[in-house]
Amino acid sequence: MVKIMANNKPGFIARPMDTLKNSLEKNIMIDVKGSRSYSGILEGYDIYMNLVLKNVSETINGENKGVFDKMLLRGDNIIFISPSGGD
Amino acid sequence: MVKIMANNKPGFIARPMDTLKNSLEKNIMIDVKGSRSYSGILEGYDIYMNLVLKNVSETINGENKGVFDKMLLRGDNIIFISPSGGD
Amino acid sequence: MVKIMANNKPGFIARPMDTLKNSLEKNIMIDVKGSRSYSGILEGYDIYMNLVLKNVSETINGENKGVFDKMLLRGDNIIFISPSGGD
Amino acid sequence: MVKIMANNKPGFIARPMDTLKNSLEKNIMIDVKGSRSYSGILEGYDIYMNLVLKNVSETINGENKGVFDKMLLRGDNIIFISPSGGD
Amino acid sequence: MVKIMANNKPGFIARPMDTLKNSLEKNIMIDVKGSRSYSGILEGYDIYMNLVLKNVSETINGENKGVFDKMLLRGDNIIFISPSGGD
Amino acid sequence: MVKIMANNKPGFIARPMDTLKNSLEKNIMIDVKGSRSYSGILEGYDIYMNLVLKNVSETINGENKGVFDKMLLRGDNIIFISPSGGD
Amino acid sequence: MVKIMANNKPGFIARPMDTLKNSLEKNIMIDVKGSRSYSGILEGYDIYMNLVLKNVSETINGENKGVFDKMLLRGDNIIFISPSGGD
Repeated sequence: MVKIMANNKPGFIARPMDTLKNSLEKNIMIDVKGSRSYSGILEGYDIYMNLVLKNVSETINGENKGVFDKMLLRGDNIIFISPSGGD
Repeated sequence: MVKIMANNKPGFIARPMDTLKNSLEKNIMIDVKGSRSYSGILEGYDIYMNLVLKNVSETINGENKGVFDKMLLRGDNIIFISPSGGD
Repeated sequence: MVKIMANNKPGFIARPMDTLKNSLEKNIMIDVKGSRSYSGILEGYDIYMNLVLKNVSETINGENKGVFDKMLLRGDNIIFISPSGGD
Repeated sequence: MVKIMANNKPGFIARPMDTLKNSLEKNIMIDVKGSRSYSGILEGYDIYMNLVLKNVSETINGENKGVFDKMLLRGDNIIFISPSGGD
Repeated sequence: MVKIMANNKPGFIARPMDTLKNSLEKNIMIDVKGSRSYSGILEGYDIYMNLVLKNVSETINGENKGVFDKMLLRGDNIIFISPSGGD
Repeated sequence: MVKIMANNKPGFIARPMDTLKNSLEKNIMIDVKGSRSYSGILEGYDIYMNLVLKNVSETINGENKGVFDKMLLRGDNIIFISPSGGD
Repeated sequence: MVKIMANNKPGFIARPMDTLKNSLEKNIMIDVKGSRSYSGILEGYDIYMNLVLKNVSETINGENKGVFDKMLLRGDNIIFISPSGGD
């Protein structure tokens, strides 16, 4: 038995886009094709999972590569997104 | 002779999205391009097979790589999804 | 001279999706990108060729890799599907 | 000066899908990404170039790999299709 | 200052699909992903750049590989098409 | 609690396309698949993230490769875009 | 403050397709996936960035490979397009 509601409690379907909405202004980690990952604060997104991030650090093949004040990350290269703290 | 019904008994067509619906709140294994797999509890999904997972463990090339409280996994890198227990 | 009819006799066009419908509850072999193949009983499908399978065995690079009670296999990695017996 | 007509005589445009229609019940060769080719009798197709084939032989890297009574071959991996005899 | 007209004289926009129309019944060379090229007479095409060709010779990695009476070449692997003579 | 407004202050969703609008006439860095990056002044864009740039310098595998007065960069190869200064 | 107008002066958004329109009958350089580039006169284009070119020279891995009177270059392999002179 499954109920759909707007909130996020156990027993309810969590919609993928709601995970992004709940992560706004919080730190997230984004795993990207090509052994890349990005960590930063989510400022915005659209339905393609294009993300606006601030205070971003970039890791390629496990090495710290750069720091960016602001970044627009295209959604189509993303493998997964993980909120850093409790959602 | 094929009949289509909402439930999932032998002799009836199982719709792919119903497999996800029936796996909600249960543990699933997801095989992903690039020798990756993820195991966690399915909290939600959308029509693109984007998945919301919790208590996720990541395996890359057979090695345990990480644990994530929560994850939004993009559907377009998925090869297959397997429910862990009886559906 | 070509006639289109709902059945599947010689001289009539076989529609690709009918091949899936005729394979329901039967064993099929699925060849997938990345030197993978899957063999199992077809329980369902959708227009994207996403498949619901049961009693699935997985072969990667010619080696038996795993057995799955149930699997949702994404259509977009499939190269071909072959019914095991007469269609 | 170009005229468009339903038949296929010299001086008229041959529509790609007509090439498939004219190959029904005939042997065709299909070249597929990944150094694969398939040869078999075309039983059906759809607008995505998904093909239904029977009596199929598979060649990978120039080696005979298998024989299949029936096959549903996805269109999106196809490089070209060649009718074996005169069209 | 740019004018759009149906013909193809200097100073007018040449529409890509017109290049195909003007090449009907003429020899063209098609460069395809994977170090392949095809040379043959264009008999037809559709809006996806799927091509119907006759008297086709295939070159892979600079080596002559085969000759085909007729071929349906999928448009999505094409890099470029070049008419052999003046258009 | 999330509010959506046209401006860009903390606490409001930043839409990805607004990041591009706010970068017009400013220097941006674009990371592109294939170990490439481009730095130049953004003159325009469309909904596909195709960019018009001027005074562009190209870096491939960490080496300066070229300078371009003007460039139309296709959006579908972009990994991320980063404004150089404060947005 | 951003104004949108049909011309191309500083302070106005340059639309990507306008860059192509302004390059008609002029020489452009096209960088293509697979270490390829093409240089020639732009005769036409469509919304997919498919280009009609004349007097084209091809460079692969830095080596001059061929010259083509006329070419239809598919848009989906293009990385960037650069007008040779002032736009």
